[in-house]
Amino acid sequence: MKVGLIGLGNMGRGVAQNLLNAGHELVVYNRTRAKAEPFQAKGARIAGTPQEAARGAEAVLSLLADDPAVEEAVLGREGLLSGLERGAIHISSSTISVALSERLTAEHARAGQGYVSAPVFGRPEAAEAKQLWVIAAGVKADVERIRPVLEAMGRGLTVLGEKASSANVVKLSGNFLIASMVEALGEAFALARKSGVEAKTFLEVFQSVFSKSPVFERYASLIADRQFQPGGFALRLGLKDVGLVLEAAGDAQVPMPLASLVKDHLLSGVARGHGELDWSALGALAAERAGLEKL
Amino acid sequence: MKVGLIGLGNMGRGVAQNLLNAGHELVVYNRTRAKAEPFQAKGARIAGTPQEAARGAEAVLSLLADDPAVEEAVLGREGLLSGLERGAIHISSSTISVALSERLTAEHARAGQGYVSAPVFGRPEAAEAKQLWVIAAGVKADVERIRPVLEAMGRGLTVLGEKASSANVVKLSGNFLIASMVEALGEAFALARKSGVEAKTFLEVFQSVFSKSPVFERYASLIADRQFQPGGFALRLGLKDVGLVLEAAGDAQVPMPLASLVKDHLLSGVARGHGELDWSALGALAAERAGLEKL
Amino acid sequence: MKVGLIGLGNMGRGVAQNLLNAGHELVVYNRTRAKAEPFQAKGARIAGTPQEAARGAEAVLSLLADDPAVEEAVLGREGLLSGLERGAIHISSSTISVALSERLTAEHARAGQGYVSAPVFGRPEAAEAKQLWVIAAGVKADVERIRPVLEAMGRGLTVLGEKASSANVVKLSGNFLIASMVEALGEAFALARKSGVEAKTFLEVFQSVFSKSPVFERYASLIADRQFQPGGFALRLGLKDVGLVLEAAGDAQVPMPLASLVKDHLLSGVARGHGELDWSALGALAAERAGLEKL
Amino acid sequence: MKVGLIGLGNMGRGVAQNLLNAGHELVVYNRTRAKAEPFQAKGARIAGTPQEAARGAEAVLSLLADDPAVEEAVLGREGLLSGLERGAIHISSSTISVALSERLTAEHARAGQGYVSAPVFGRPEAAEAKQLWVIAAGVKADVERIRPVLEAMGRGLTVLGEKASSANVVKLSGNFLIASMVEALGEAFALARKSGVEAKTFLEVFQSVFSKSPVFERYASLIADRQFQPGGFALRLGLKDVGLVLEAAGDAQVPMPLASLVKDHLLSGVARGHGELDWSALGALAAERAGLEKL
Repeated sequence: MKVGLIGLGNMGRGVAQNLLNAGHELVVYNRTRAKAEPFQAKGARIAGTPQEAARGAEAVLSLLADDPAVEEAVLGREGLLSGLERGAIHISSSTISVALSERLTAEHARAGQGYVSAPVFGRPEAAEAKQLWVIAAGVKADVERIRPVLEAMGRGLTVLGEKASSANVVKLSGNFLIASMVEALGEAFALARKSGVEAKTFLEVFQSVFSKSPVFERYASLIADRQFQPGGFALRLGLKDVGLVLEAAGDAQVPMPLASLVKDHLLSGVARGHGELDWSALGALAAERAGLEKL
Repeated sequence: MKVGLIGLGNMGRGVAQNLLNAGHELVVYNRTRAKAEPFQAKGARIAGTPQEAARGAEAVLSLLADDPAVEEAVLGREGLLSGLERGAIHISSSTISVALSERLTAEHARAGQGYVSAPVFGRPEAAEAKQLWVIAAGVKADVERIRPVLEAMGRGLTVLGEKASSANVVKLSGNFLIASMVEALGEAFALARKSGVEAKTFLEVFQSVFSKSPVFERYASLIADRQFQPGGFALRLGLKDVGLVLEAAGDAQVPMPLASLVKDHLLSGVARGHGELDWSALGALAAERAGLEKL
Repeated sequence: MKVGLIGLGNMGRGVAQNLLNAGHELVVYNRTRAKAEPFQAKGARIAGTPQEAARGAEAVLSLLADDPAVEEAVLGREGLLSGLERGAIHISSSTISVALSERLTAEHARAGQGYVSAPVFGRPEAAEAKQLWVIAAGVKADVERIRPVLEAMGRGLTVLGEKASSANVVKLSGNFLIASMVEALGEAFALARKSGVEAKTFLEVFQSVFSKSPVFERYASLIADRQFQPGGFALRLGLKDVGLVLEAAGDAQVPMPLASLVKDHLLSGVARGHGELDWSALGALAAERAGLEKL
Repeated sequence: MKVGLIGLGNMGRGVAQNLLNAGHELVVYNRTRAKAEPFQAKGARIAGTPQEAARGAEAVLSLLADDPAVEEAVLGREGLLSGLERGAIHISSSTISVALSERLTAEHARAGQGYVSAPVFGRPEAAEAKQLWVIAAGVKADVERIRPVLEAMGRGLTVLGEKASSANVVKLSGNFLIASMVEALGEAFALARKSGVEAKTFLEVFQSVFSKSPVFERYASLIADRQFQPGGFALRLGLKDVGLVLEAAGDAQVPMPLASLVKDHLLSGVARGHGELDWSALGALAAERAGLEKL
């Protein structure tokens, strides 16, 4: 396919290489032109503006840092919207706000163009090694038409429904899960180290116990299915354990705000009479706070 | 080996069966005797008190609900401490406090007995299916002597150092990681659902993206090695993304306290000039708050 | 003075009455005209648009619910900006964002008009009883010119500097302080009640101990002056006490997330070696997290 | 009265002086005897142990740093419990745990002695200036008998019911309120300063607006009476304002975890359909999380 690519940052460079490898005809644009030059040698054409990169392309993929960068590259003077032909498709792979994604959906529709939201999971190394995972949402026919591009980007593709911005919700939620885990790991390592367990040792246990076991996947299933009974591991026991964590943390002088937060939620569950449910019912409490079903 | 087993709850029953399967000679004790009876048919002997279960055993394993239960079963009148012979070993697999584990270390030492702390990871199904992971710590010779028991309990064993209570720190930290992840999942599902993404769909993405990829393991390594540069994914971008999560959550009316907490930590990192570090530097901030190295 | 007033909600009605009482000549505008009519009988003129309310006025005061309402009333078609004469002044008393306040500063300057940000503290009863407290910021000459209007609104006036949006920062910070106190009171009442102390009794103590004593004022001074030594009440004792609060709360099954948060900050202070400072050093920790001076 | 006094720290010294001034006959004990000596010159007798200080006294008042210190001084060998006569009263003014207060109630009752829990509010300067506020609870006759001692300590006395530990709940809750306010002030000052408002200026506003107005008292009344309607200041407006605070804080790079926490509670209130209630309904949400009435 004839594809425009806007943005050759850490992520974009890996994607560009893989699109070339897959045989796509590539026109690249990058604000700092120097980063585009290596791709010229590999057969890509360099455009001077996003508009030019979009002109004549069947699809133009943008992979930029944030909302302002995408707004400028798409809606700005010489933005891709003004270059893209009717019927051609904008593939938006940047991590942007749900609000901007909804606005782009409307703007492209008004211009008779397609808009597929297709954010990716994976770090720069994964982009380079074609190991990204793509989450796509948009009008079905559009998604199917650009499927070869999406498949050339990574190791997997999940297609959501027709509401483009739902892919952004999922991408942002995924980054939130990672950030939470990083925070949790940070607190856990601090506790381990101040309790005399070496970071290296703690890492080995983590690798053995968690990374070879589908523990998080199982809890995700329990929450998705709202299956809180029978309580394989009761909420009141979770409260006890997180209480012990905080006790140990207090003794070792390690602030653990995430543990404190989780403890208060468990305590509320118990105070309200749900101590015998599985502790995955933390998910039910979160839903209830959001105005979804009452526990 | 001749092994006593105190506690036949959800977890203990699975372990008892696997110890029998491995050919160990078992004496079981449970407060409610009825739960012990099925094991008599399978060749175990039933003891009337923890003391009796310990008498003559090379090792006695306790697997109980909490600190008070363990205190009573070990230190109480007719507790196992008074029945265990000099040189025999108490294997403590309950999830108890670091403080109690230290006290038991001292009490058993005073009685000339061994004490190995060996908490397990896994839910009741895992106990039954011999899929637990055991974390053991204690005097090296003691750990080696009871290794056949530990190996009969699950699919893996990690031996930490000689300080028994370090196994409790690790176990509690592990439960904290799970609780954090459950909380994070709960908030993420609430956001997805209120944004029009079905729970089932979100689960599929989670399964595809996270469970087949060592994403958490990689972040654990970065934190363990304090390798925050180069910033594969910069802290300031993490701040942007978690900010977008909260924006979407505000629009969908979904409270996400864990996201709020993480955002404030990322914001502090950026405010203090560390925005270009990898966002695994959240771990460095946690360490600093605990009085460890300054970032 | 000849004054336009935009917005006759709960707050605006009280202000309108007091401006009339002070002898100002009033032109009022309200989206729902019915709310304006009572003031016609009292001598005010009713305008059909914000633009009309501004026309010919020396000052026009807006008192609306939020950013969108203010944007429309000021910058919209038939907004007050298009009606206000050069040299006349817009007094913005709504609780709006710092960003919008900065934008209004620029827009009015461009139109050769004055802009004074003058948010108020006080609930509707206070507005009616002329008990509001006004915080004003803007070009000095402008503030002086409209002083009679500001003084007619309430019991007191504090004039900040020339940067109009600083009044919005202060107003928002004040509302944050109130919200924090309400949250804290909510948690404290829950604890008291579940511990068998009646809400009425707890209220009496609160009234006796806190409302007749300048306790909060004193802490505000200590933080403003960064006077953390000598430690009249040491941070480590604060940690002890908040720890005891959480212990009691755990026993009574009362989640206290604000107590948890404060405890973690105190714990970090102690972990980093500042346990002997006065516990007002919580303020120094907050400053440090914001990238201000290190503790 | 003949009074023993255990503990001559920052607080105890002020109290000792005021008891002497009021004409009580004093026997003092302090672990470091040197601190007791100045009082000998003023007419007090020095005891070598808490037991000795209690012997022959009608009441013995303890004012120590924490639980362990009180446990040792009361229940230890040579503790005051063993010296106090039947019918004499222990006045416990230290800030201790609810659990220890309940234990002391039982121990003294068993010994035929009275136990009045009488913690105090006020910093060392207040102790010296006889400006403490005393909160007392215990058997009514006991409280009445020692009223002259309690009144000699400060500027006011509130007598709660007969359950001694309720005074500790109230004292701890009071310290929690102060800690919360200090945290809130810390965050607010950080925001003000990073937004260009000088600390001194912000302090002046705080002094004008809050310290001369019963704002906190009014919110405490609303929560105590569960009077959330009509919504003088609606919860959804509170959400808007705290949202604006966080927006300003994000722009100024100021982490405000307390603001984040409050925002999530307000957001939950709105998500669950309570946006029109007064924002004092934050107190109702806290009660609900504790298993009290549903909102």
